[in-house]
Amino acid sequence: MASTPPSHGQPHRTPPQQHGHVIPRHPRLDPLADRYAARTHGMKTSEIRALFSVVSRPEVVSLAGGMPAVTALPLDAVGSMIGELVSGMGAQTLQYGSGQGDPRLRERICDVMALEGITDASPSEVVVTVGSQQGLDLVTRVFCDPGDVILAEGPSYVGALGVFQAAEARVRHVPMDDDGLIPEALEQALIECRANGDRVKFLYTVPNYHNPGGVTLSEPRRQAIVDIADRYDLLVIEDNPYGLLGFDREPMRALRARDAQRVIYLGSFSKTFSPGLRVGWVLAPLAVREKLVLATEAQVLCPPSLTQYAVARYLDTQPWREQIKLFTELYRERRDATLESLDALMPPGTTWTRPDGGFYVWLKLPNGLDSKLMQPRAVNAHVAYVPGIGFYADGSGREYMRLSYCYPEPDQIREGVRRLARVIEAELDLHSTFDAVDTGTFRAVGRPTHTAETIVGPANSDRIED
Amino acid sequence: MASTPPSHGQPHRTPPQQHGHVIPRHPRLDPLADRYAARTHGMKTSEIRALFSVVSRPEVVSLAGGMPAVTALPLDAVGSMIGELVSGMGAQTLQYGSGQGDPRLRERICDVMALEGITDASPSEVVVTVGSQQGLDLVTRVFCDPGDVILAEGPSYVGALGVFQAAEARVRHVPMDDDGLIPEALEQALIECRANGDRVKFLYTVPNYHNPGGVTLSEPRRQAIVDIADRYDLLVIEDNPYGLLGFDREPMRALRARDAQRVIYLGSFSKTFSPGLRVGWVLAPLAVREKLVLATEAQVLCPPSLTQYAVARYLDTQPWREQIKLFTELYRERRDATLESLDALMPPGTTWTRPDGGFYVWLKLPNGLDSKLMQPRAVNAHVAYVPGIGFYADGSGREYMRLSYCYPEPDQIREGVRRLARVIEAELDLHSTFDAVDTGTFRAVGRPTHTAETIVGPANSDRIED
Repeated sequence: MASTPPSHGQPHRTPPQQHGHVIPRHPRLDPLADRYAARTHGMKTSEIRALFSVVSRPEVVSLAGGMPAVTALPLDAVGSMIGELVSGMGAQTLQYGSGQGDPRLRERICDVMALEGITDASPSEVVVTVGSQQGLDLVTRVFCDPGDVILAEGPSYVGALGVFQAAEARVRHVPMDDDGLIPEALEQALIECRANGDRVKFLYTVPNYHNPGGVTLSEPRRQAIVDIADRYDLLVIEDNPYGLLGFDREPMRALRARDAQRVIYLGSFSKTFSPGLRVGWVLAPLAVREKLVLATEAQVLCPPSLTQYAVARYLDTQPWREQIKLFTELYRERRDATLESLDALMPPGTTWTRPDGGFYVWLKLPNGLDSKLMQPRAVNAHVAYVPGIGFYADGSGREYMRLSYCYPEPDQIREGVRRLARVIEAELDLHSTFDAVDTGTFRAVGRPTHTAETIVGPANSDRIED
Repeated sequence: MASTPPSHGQPHRTPPQQHGHVIPRHPRLDPLADRYAARTHGMKTSEIRALFSVVSRPEVVSLAGGMPAVTALPLDAVGSMIGELVSGMGAQTLQYGSGQGDPRLRERICDVMALEGITDASPSEVVVTVGSQQGLDLVTRVFCDPGDVILAEGPSYVGALGVFQAAEARVRHVPMDDDGLIPEALEQALIECRANGDRVKFLYTVPNYHNPGGVTLSEPRRQAIVDIADRYDLLVIEDNPYGLLGFDREPMRALRARDAQRVIYLGSFSKTFSPGLRVGWVLAPLAVREKLVLATEAQVLCPPSLTQYAVARYLDTQPWREQIKLFTELYRERRDATLESLDALMPPGTTWTRPDGGFYVWLKLPNGLDSKLMQPRAVNAHVAYVPGIGFYADGSGREYMRLSYCYPEPDQIREGVRRLARVIEAELDLHSTFDAVDTGTFRAVGRPTHTAETIVGPANSDRIED
């Protein structure tokens, strides 16, 4: 838990050495280097995006990406449905639409939110966005000036950290445990921020099946968080892409269902239908909604019409609740494969969360091992994960990693966990061999420089914190 | 031509009076009013978006919107094509994609740009965006800090002004004439900016069939602009949605074709195929492209996959060049209807541009009439246009209006121009009656308050400049 300003350091990667000479992967001297905005110098490739080329190699079992299992959709039915939308309603689906989004879709979005106890939402309070990523970007642009403070779980969704960094906001992490965000820690953070004179703009939280934490905010804590928000006049951004993907229970009641004025809710169809359509939304009080519409018009004019009509028609004509059930059964099976393999294979001292929904397990390495330094060896062993530092704005998280079970089949998952366990065991062996050597040197020994150089994360600190 | 900082004035509209009491259209006291970012206070509804509800009334002939004639597309063929994409390639079209955009589409985009003489573009320099609006937003975010100066034609595309305002950049307009941007005026502006110590980040220009000006940058001026950019080390953003929509000639050679390092090119499929898919792109030198990808990942993660596949497949399998020819024939006919009606009906002293491509005519009212004040009377007469002030960042342009001929049928256009001519004539009559009264008072006389209040533009000055 720490507060650091966004990095204004080196935006460029060092070109890798190979065959004794420098490979110029992009112009080394950027003639425009002195023209960029301040925010641009802080932008870095995320840990996840940096892995993209690695994880798409067929021999690698990727426990890295968060890609939903879209092939479990009835593709023929969805294809016919979208084809008919274009043939029959081309004048609407291929034309510009409203910046706020299609009114019919906004109505259906209210129906979806009702499943989580949000029964007072009006379509006029909904803004359709290009995925909930754009929703978070809009909210952040509307509220945050450079230097403003955002409270966020530690760890937090890597894409959110990217948004906050681009806004030149400072992130202060608030710790979680197995019951999600810790209310006492939130209150402590607020007290300290007040003492520092920090302008806290909002709390960003993923209460359900946290990415990357895999944990869920408990019922009593939900009320505690809302009470703290009320007491400290704190705005809460509730990011909820996974809320309907619980394995063993009905959806939990959203924070927004408890406080309509202080909670701005972000939703998405990426995990319940399709991420390739990029349809998400923001539910916000009318005054904020008005700002969000102006902001989105300046950013994209309007969201794509075709994809909005596709989602609305899907909700109108397809058995979407049953489809979500089908998705969760599939993900539950993969979660089980993950946890069973971890239980069976991981060396002592390794710990992990036990998600009851969503896509992710958050794993802690034993003995202070560093997941970032271990990554090249894992890739050599044909298994990929996302190093924990990607999920912290302050360089911490090196002993953690995120494992995703949403995309690979159970057998692949078991094989991936097996490979990962072997890599960790080898690291532990090495560690015990070099036990006398200081940690810094140990790291340098096991580090194949050329691979490590190609993967650069947002972290710019070598501190390891909990 | 003037330089003004973005307005930080009243972001709220005054609720209209009706039936003797105030209608609270949104909460009058926004409890979050003191939380917003500085940029948010400058955001205003654009002149075009404010007209949305008016122009969708069936009795109104709208010469306001810039909606392409998408029903001229082969909707059945496009529908089948997209339906098959989903049925056959759902694992790709419904899944997340790369932040930079689909590689196959980026290749085809290079083919499209070759039609305008850009033959050295590599797909690796292309970033696919959610319409070229997002492209402009990304470029502006990557380059502009608050207070930076952007040079732009006067008038300029209203959506670009919205982006610049959201970035808290200052816009300095550079005048145009029938041959487009005036190079000498650009040079003069650069000299003055240097003298003022302004940080000029780029020139934003629409060289072909300008929106809203309707004019095209002449061949000799293209070279002159590129030479000035070189001499003054000026970055140029070439926004070119209409370049392939010329009525009488082959596409002109792009500025980017003359200078690959200093020109960032924005393209769009909104006018050549469909705006409802929101597929545009940026072509930029590799170092800039790298920043743009990071910025778009923070904003939307990746553009929608389905719409990208739809455009790539359309370019691969449909006769898109013939379709563009069909579009231009249709627009030419509408342009002819517009110009013929204007020639026949407009009162003396009214002047307008004569576009040879694109969507727009830029009309100047006689005798200092004010298009913004006249607007409610035009709407009463069932014709809509966009007042000129929407296209200036500095409150000028009141004697101008933009007429779009892209969407209505020729007969509707003729009827619309007839109605507009009558409204202008009535204004002139009024004007001559009140000739002794000063202009300010004259304006107040003719202004039905309730309608005017509902239409609020970005302009915050009453100055009238040329």
